[in-house]
Amino acid sequence: MPSYTAPVKDMQFILHDVLKASESDIPGYDELDRDFTAAILEEAGKISSEVLAPLNAVGDVEGCRLENGVVYTPTGFKEAFEQMREGGWTGLDCDPDYGGQGMPYVLGVATGEMFTAANMAFTMYQGLTHGAYSAIHAHGSDAQKQTYLPKMVTCEWTGTMNLTEPHCGTDLGLMRTKAEPQDDGSYRITGQKIFISAGDHDMSENVIHLVLAKIPGGPDGIKGVSLFIVPKSIVREDGTPGERNGVSVGKIEEKMGIHGNATCVMNYDGATGWLLGEAHKGMRAMFTMMNEARLGVGMQGLAVAEAAYQNGLSYARERLQGRAVTGAENKDGPADPLIVHPDIRRSLMDQKSFTEGARAFVLWGAQMIDQAHRMDDKTAEGAISLLTPVLKGFLTDQGFDMAVLAQQIWGGHGYIEEQGMSQFARDARIAMIYEGANGVQALDLVGRKLAAEGGKPAMAFFEMIKGFCKENAGDEAFARDFVEPLKTASKHLQEAAMFFMQNGMKNPNHALAGSYDFMHLFGHVCLGLMWSKMALAAQAKLAEGDGDTAFYETKIATGRYYMARRLPATAMHLARITSGADTVMALDAANF
Amino acid sequence: MPSYTAPVKDMQFILHDVLKASESDIPGYDELDRDFTAAILEEAGKISSEVLAPLNAVGDVEGCRLENGVVYTPTGFKEAFEQMREGGWTGLDCDPDYGGQGMPYVLGVATGEMFTAANMAFTMYQGLTHGAYSAIHAHGSDAQKQTYLPKMVTCEWTGTMNLTEPHCGTDLGLMRTKAEPQDDGSYRITGQKIFISAGDHDMSENVIHLVLAKIPGGPDGIKGVSLFIVPKSIVREDGTPGERNGVSVGKIEEKMGIHGNATCVMNYDGATGWLLGEAHKGMRAMFTMMNEARLGVGMQGLAVAEAAYQNGLSYARERLQGRAVTGAENKDGPADPLIVHPDIRRSLMDQKSFTEGARAFVLWGAQMIDQAHRMDDKTAEGAISLLTPVLKGFLTDQGFDMAVLAQQIWGGHGYIEEQGMSQFARDARIAMIYEGANGVQALDLVGRKLAAEGGKPAMAFFEMIKGFCKENAGDEAFARDFVEPLKTASKHLQEAAMFFMQNGMKNPNHALAGSYDFMHLFGHVCLGLMWSKMALAAQAKLAEGDGDTAFYETKIATGRYYMARRLPATAMHLARITSGADTVMALDAANF
Repeated sequence: MPSYTAPVKDMQFILHDVLKASESDIPGYDELDRDFTAAILEEAGKISSEVLAPLNAVGDVEGCRLENGVVYTPTGFKEAFEQMREGGWTGLDCDPDYGGQGMPYVLGVATGEMFTAANMAFTMYQGLTHGAYSAIHAHGSDAQKQTYLPKMVTCEWTGTMNLTEPHCGTDLGLMRTKAEPQDDGSYRITGQKIFISAGDHDMSENVIHLVLAKIPGGPDGIKGVSLFIVPKSIVREDGTPGERNGVSVGKIEEKMGIHGNATCVMNYDGATGWLLGEAHKGMRAMFTMMNEARLGVGMQGLAVAEAAYQNGLSYARERLQGRAVTGAENKDGPADPLIVHPDIRRSLMDQKSFTEGARAFVLWGAQMIDQAHRMDDKTAEGAISLLTPVLKGFLTDQGFDMAVLAQQIWGGHGYIEEQGMSQFARDARIAMIYEGANGVQALDLVGRKLAAEGGKPAMAFFEMIKGFCKENAGDEAFARDFVEPLKTASKHLQEAAMFFMQNGMKNPNHALAGSYDFMHLFGHVCLGLMWSKMALAAQAKLAEGDGDTAFYETKIATGRYYMARRLPATAMHLARITSGADTVMALDAANF
Repeated sequence: MPSYTAPVKDMQFILHDVLKASESDIPGYDELDRDFTAAILEEAGKISSEVLAPLNAVGDVEGCRLENGVVYTPTGFKEAFEQMREGGWTGLDCDPDYGGQGMPYVLGVATGEMFTAANMAFTMYQGLTHGAYSAIHAHGSDAQKQTYLPKMVTCEWTGTMNLTEPHCGTDLGLMRTKAEPQDDGSYRITGQKIFISAGDHDMSENVIHLVLAKIPGGPDGIKGVSLFIVPKSIVREDGTPGERNGVSVGKIEEKMGIHGNATCVMNYDGATGWLLGEAHKGMRAMFTMMNEARLGVGMQGLAVAEAAYQNGLSYARERLQGRAVTGAENKDGPADPLIVHPDIRRSLMDQKSFTEGARAFVLWGAQMIDQAHRMDDKTAEGAISLLTPVLKGFLTDQGFDMAVLAQQIWGGHGYIEEQGMSQFARDARIAMIYEGANGVQALDLVGRKLAAEGGKPAMAFFEMIKGFCKENAGDEAFARDFVEPLKTASKHLQEAAMFFMQNGMKNPNHALAGSYDFMHLFGHVCLGLMWSKMALAAQAKLAEGDGDTAFYETKIATGRYYMARRLPATAMHLARITSGADTVMALDAANF
């Protein structure tokens, strides 16, 4: 049975030594001193290891079940959810006006990584609620906010997002669900939504569905889509859930993973809904939460990879098999532990250098979101909008690959369900798909974000790397191990962007055929930057003679690995990109 | 529900236009004319599509069950197995002296790809039997051959391979199962074996277990391991199964995939066994079948990728979502099919160029095995021994990746079990693990095969590529699209081998830390070679004005894609390799 230990020390290092959170002038960050964040992270780590992680396999094996219209979550979920509520974990970064604790988003993401690593399917109930909370918070009327938010902050009521229909996922303009206006200002919602995570369950007294639908007579396609609040039980004047609404669970899907989360077919049969935000501006309302939601999914990729890595590592330390090629290391034992073998090291270092780099990337992204929201900083908004598809697409693809690597260390035992390594791979797989499949992220990055604001955020990113490289060229060893590889990788990224500009004009396929590789190239550059910053911070700590020498030396060594062994992928991606669209689009569809 | 269409045309092209099978002087190949192989492949394709494929999901959902010591296979498996027997498919490439049809192994592999693509879990019952058949055929006494082989050729009796124990998989020297000699020349076998594919089931009247065990008093470690025949029911004088032997199924494992195959814990409790081959030479006996067995697993990687690709493709053609960026292509419809989108093309082309290249690689490998066995050709033996870990490791890693890509095309629907795309990914996953985990393949390649016979097979491989490039440098377009990329990739491979030679001497970790990347680098070179040969063959057919122009043009275009878009991976692998072992081995095991 896998276990999970929260990476508190690593998060503290990133928050304080790399991002220097408490020195930031983002409102609220002044509270984030070392002791304060340590206390929160320790507590979150404790509930993750002790309460959530033991339920991860339970959720996988039992799944959710639908009986007489009621959805039951796996054994123990209800009690654990209650503990999350009591601990105040559901409203950590929510608005104090509605009962939240008002902490920065960056702390919500750090604790969210722990909860997700311990139990992804479970944590989604809370994650979806947070997404719906954000939408209502951003676009709701005062009355709507008063009605729904306090209950959603505590997760007494949970939330869902209803976008997909059987015939449309990415292309929401094809949507058929309709919302007919009623005399009392409400709407009658009719249609079917599928793949609704946390769609219904027995852990809260109400479920607040946010539903995209079309008001008849509105514009065609995506411009005619509006967003509605459709509660499972209609809220009475006194604020308590009353009459059941015309929404029901059609079925719970049998999925490859995240069995503990009820992925529902939701049937809206003339359900009563209320417009959230403006009519026909539903997509825009969704977009305002998109950076957060997608960063959250990228974080899931990292979180599951971390949990898988920890258990791959413990097996590599314990399992005795073969002898080190350089001479036996466990002479008194029948064989050496797996970890002596260079190829096992290669696998572990790929994983470790990914998860730690990804963690810095995610927290940096969360800090940018805080900066954008709390300071209304348009530059930060532009930067995080550019990086969002990279955070989502790159981290979930890599997160899955890393979970597969961790599973592989276990050999045949990794393929046996009761060992739990398969679950990591199966759970991680969904993050590549939902919240915009990764191909759509790549399209968003190259087709939209790269040229957004006349390319200003992209240029600023390149300049920032250039500035970093210039500033840190002085230290010879650091320049050789970090600055030079980062410079090369960044050059590849710019060459790729240039290729798109030069060739995408005459034929947009030249840009889009390279979009997926560009997303990965970009991701490697970001992790290369994160590792360079982490190594620099670790060097500084070592120079100060402060604290845990082994920790900082390990940081630098792991960074060197990433720069030497992972970053060379950028050249491959560039080669794929600059080969253009011709070979990609050569075949007639009939000839595949 | 996924469907499967056997790639008969592609196999015919490879067998006849690329490998020129019937022109070969390998005994038995003269029979392989176009019409003959077409007839066989068509028939095998038919039973694959019509009988085996419809049972694939059934096997996944139902799995196998153990009741009162009896293992039951999923609904329909028994009848399908009977059809395979009746069609003579179980003994296609077996020795006619024991009732086989005596066809070349290459045909067994081609039909095996179809059966596996249609239903991997089902086909393993037959595949394991073939492996055990080969071991007895190679090492058995005449009496043993007479007793077991005729029944195994028909799969009236099936076979298993028992190597792994709970505490040892790769490191078989740690084995505890013991074989105590009895006065009658038999042995009493006692111990537990795990992960025994097709370990027991209700489709045959006997199961012939091949079991590795140690005779007490023999040499320590791997040199003290012997191979035994342990039938489930002891065969009577008249050749019929009699008394039940002391072997039983402890449990059936719950696995990530291949649910239709009964992966058993086998308990040997003083079971009667007979030595197969010489005492203490059990590993050597296993090794003689290893090339075949591992090529067979590599083929599984390809086969599942092909089945997944076909279903990814059909979804890409049917699912309407979004519009082509270059202008609507399905103007009368609500949206264009997915296949218009460049990133979907990128995914499909990655898959198509892999499966077709892999197919050529596998059949070329099978031809070498025929050449080695049927002509006792030591050069061919050396070549296939070198390529075997590449066939196994590269094709199963890539096969899994491709199944994941195909699943991704389906978006959210790909994550829902009833659509069947998840099964391809889950089934394909095991091929990376069993028959020597892929890390062990890489170790075998770099630690053993590369330097085997003083490096002769490796040098011959490089020379062969060099010769090919020289011969075909004349055609300008071909040289640009195929010869040049192949030359570069081959140069990377040689540089990597050189790096190992120069650095592995002083520190073997420098070689082993790059072994996994070397295996992939090697795989890309092999597929680059295959694509160059296929493109050449297609060009020749076009020049002859022969037949299906679209097929040959598609071949060349797909080859161009591989050379332009996949082969650049070799530079990345080389960079990882030549970065050496320092960053890989830098951390103290305690500091991970």
